[in-house]
Amino acid sequence: MSKLLDQAVAELAKLPGVGKRTALRLAIHLLRREKEDVALLAESLQRFRNDIRYCRYCNNLSDEEVCPICADGRRDRTTVCVVEHVKDVISIENTRQYNGMYHVLGGIISPMQGISPSDLKIDLLLENIARGEIREVILALNTSVEGETTTFYITRRLADCTGIRVTSLARGIGFGDELDYADDLTIAHALHNRTVIGQ
Amino acid sequence: MSKLLDQAVAELAKLPGVGKRTALRLAIHLLRREKEDVALLAESLQRFRNDIRYCRYCNNLSDEEVCPICADGRRDRTTVCVVEHVKDVISIENTRQYNGMYHVLGGIISPMQGISPSDLKIDLLLENIARGEIREVILALNTSVEGETTTFYITRRLADCTGIRVTSLARGIGFGDELDYADDLTIAHALHNRTVIGQ
Repeated sequence: MSKLLDQAVAELAKLPGVGKRTALRLAIHLLRREKEDVALLAESLQRFRNDIRYCRYCNNLSDEEVCPICADGRRDRTTVCVVEHVKDVISIENTRQYNGMYHVLGGIISPMQGISPSDLKIDLLLENIARGEIREVILALNTSVEGETTTFYITRRLADCTGIRVTSLARGIGFGDELDYADDLTIAHALHNRTVIGQ
Repeated sequence: MSKLLDQAVAELAKLPGVGKRTALRLAIHLLRREKEDVALLAESLQRFRNDIRYCRYCNNLSDEEVCPICADGRRDRTTVCVVEHVKDVISIENTRQYNGMYHVLGGIISPMQGISPSDLKIDLLLENIARGEIREVILALNTSVEGETTTFYITRRLADCTGIRVTSLARGIGFGDELDYADDLTIAHALHNRTVIGQ
């Protein structure tokens, strides 16, 4: 019907979770927006893709060579929290409960997807630790088989580093979760690592 | 954390049905795509918004002054199907059961949303009819209150046009719909306009 429409729909449909029907709806929506607004959307996507950098210390997304967290002198440089992705940094920052540093692996060890330890920023983590400031490494990876494998691999790599405490996130029942919907492993963990709340 | 990321997420989150979390997921996804791919997406959206036109006869989206359907000499020029939106044209074309022309109103009469008849391409429809080729006007609007109002309004405007048959889509039980889930009005319509299938 219209090549311009077809192209816009085809490109939008390449986004994850966007089917042909949603792509068409998004394209039609763009017609109702000002031309300047659509230009702003298009430019911000392209600028993001072309100009974004990865922090040379923590591999987090950054506009500069060093990300704002690594550049922030008020943060606790003795603790580093190792995460899989940038979005995990955002999740943890949103809690406002953590004031240490981060280290973004950029993925997780997955033989199925052909991701080996050398594809991840593990050497960079060891370099950072070698500088001597870090006292605790929090491994905040997912509980999937790949996550556990990665946790195990990094723990082994850190075995030679003396004076470094390696921890992982507490496993237990999430707030708002119902006990009868939690899986056996989670309940077993929660029971084993139960917290004292009174004498 | 990163202004480039924040801007991309903010722009993506303006799309309908895209929240902050989805916008972040889409932005992160773009990092895994080639720069050229993201440029192609950005350009196709901007080109679509800037260069798309509306057919001077039927108000359908078009790359040229006249859309491919209106320009197609093999289509039946005696029948025009009046629809609300471009996506309705696509829905009907996908059936491959209709070979007539279309007329895209560009909306529906809605006092609640401040859309009056003058905001729709109704005068253009009457101009097209005045050229004398059209014998049937199919009103293919939704069954909402606004749709019925628009159907009623156009029917009244067409009352003076002699020799024009005005029809609407058949109302009934959709294929795959279950009778006990259909609403009373649909069942009543379907019963009233029942079809003979044997002697």
